[in-house]
Amino acid sequence: MVITGELADCFSCKREGLESLMACVRRSFSIPAYFWGTEGFGWTDPLELAAANWSASAAFLGREAGDCLFVDMGSTTTDIIPICAGRVVSASTDFLRLAAGEMVYMGLLRTRLDAILPAARIGGRSVPLAPEFFATMADARLALGQISEEHYACDTADGAGKNRQSALRRLARCVCADLEEIGEGVAMAIARQACRRQKDILVEAI
Amino acid sequence: MVITGELADCFSCKREGLESLMACVRRSFSIPAYFWGTEGFGWTDPLELAAANWSASAAFLGREAGDCLFVDMGSTTTDIIPICAGRVVSASTDFLRLAAGEMVYMGLLRTRLDAILPAARIGGRSVPLAPEFFATMADARLALGQISEEHYACDTADGAGKNRQSALRRLARCVCADLEEIGEGVAMAIARQACRRQKDILVEAI
Repeated sequence: MVITGELADCFSCKREGLESLMACVRRSFSIPAYFWGTEGFGWTDPLELAAANWSASAAFLGREAGDCLFVDMGSTTTDIIPICAGRVVSASTDFLRLAAGEMVYMGLLRTRLDAILPAARIGGRSVPLAPEFFATMADARLALGQISEEHYACDTADGAGKNRQSALRRLARCVCADLEEIGEGVAMAIARQACRRQKDILVEAI
Repeated sequence: MVITGELADCFSCKREGLESLMACVRRSFSIPAYFWGTEGFGWTDPLELAAANWSASAAFLGREAGDCLFVDMGSTTTDIIPICAGRVVSASTDFLRLAAGEMVYMGLLRTRLDAILPAARIGGRSVPLAPEFFATMADARLALGQISEEHYACDTADGAGKNRQSALRRLARCVCADLEEIGEGVAMAIARQACRRQKDILVEAI
């Protein structure tokens, strides 16, 4: 069992989050639950379990592959984990991994559009995107046909539909506009620029 | 009467938002309501009323001051409006004002911290802030003593208190850390860097 989620708003600190999540798991299963920490199953402090999901996959891959770079892009974050001679060579906490560039806080779907693309090129001008929760990368990918509605596995920013038209509306809202105001072509250009930029960030991080 | 709010999630487009807000105002007052658009009270299309609040203050200032640059920083956005010979010389829609740099989408309080400070210098390293709704500029200003709890006029990101300790916790969460993990000194450094950066962005925009 690996844990993430201890950083959620409802917990005042990671320890409280971890203990609450562990208790919840133990209540839910009638079999013993074993938790994996950054150093494996042999942990002493629950804090070692904080966001250690990447370390389970990395340890497994270490046994299989020996030397490699393990890149795991989820909906919200991307783990970039160096594995040397079967050993996971990376920082242990989210904070240290963020500082080391081993966790890039962007994912394929849930990431806010303006975090990837602070400004879009529109008609030769650089137009800043509003730093509001107006659209996500899922909208960009859906608009471009890279994912289907079924693969849109996160909530929409405005609670509206996961269809193409709603996604285009959300993309337009990022520059404080109605879709009719800027047109579908511009909304699509924003989507393309965001996806291209995300790829560049990923390549740079690797 | 001026209107903002038509960009809110609950409206599918600006026209729907404007008509709904106008109807709401008319229901609420037993006296006639006059709405101000980007060209004043003499508007024909409700779309002229969209986010025209800045234009009322700018028109008033134009009469008083003649030539000036009107800078109005609110909780969420900052308007930078050139006034020449008493006339407001600026684009009319949010989209065009964003493109022209006449609306800078950042404010004193409600703006997400990571939108102002994408990465903080901590211990000689550049640590990216998580692009989540973890903290706002209000937390930075409260932590630094620039505003009191009473002036913290927006919601907190996590729904927790507006006291200093809660603000410091939210600042730490921006780098995926507990406050105990990075310490108050680092949380304060993040706050200082965010406020300094916001000032730089404002100066640059002007």
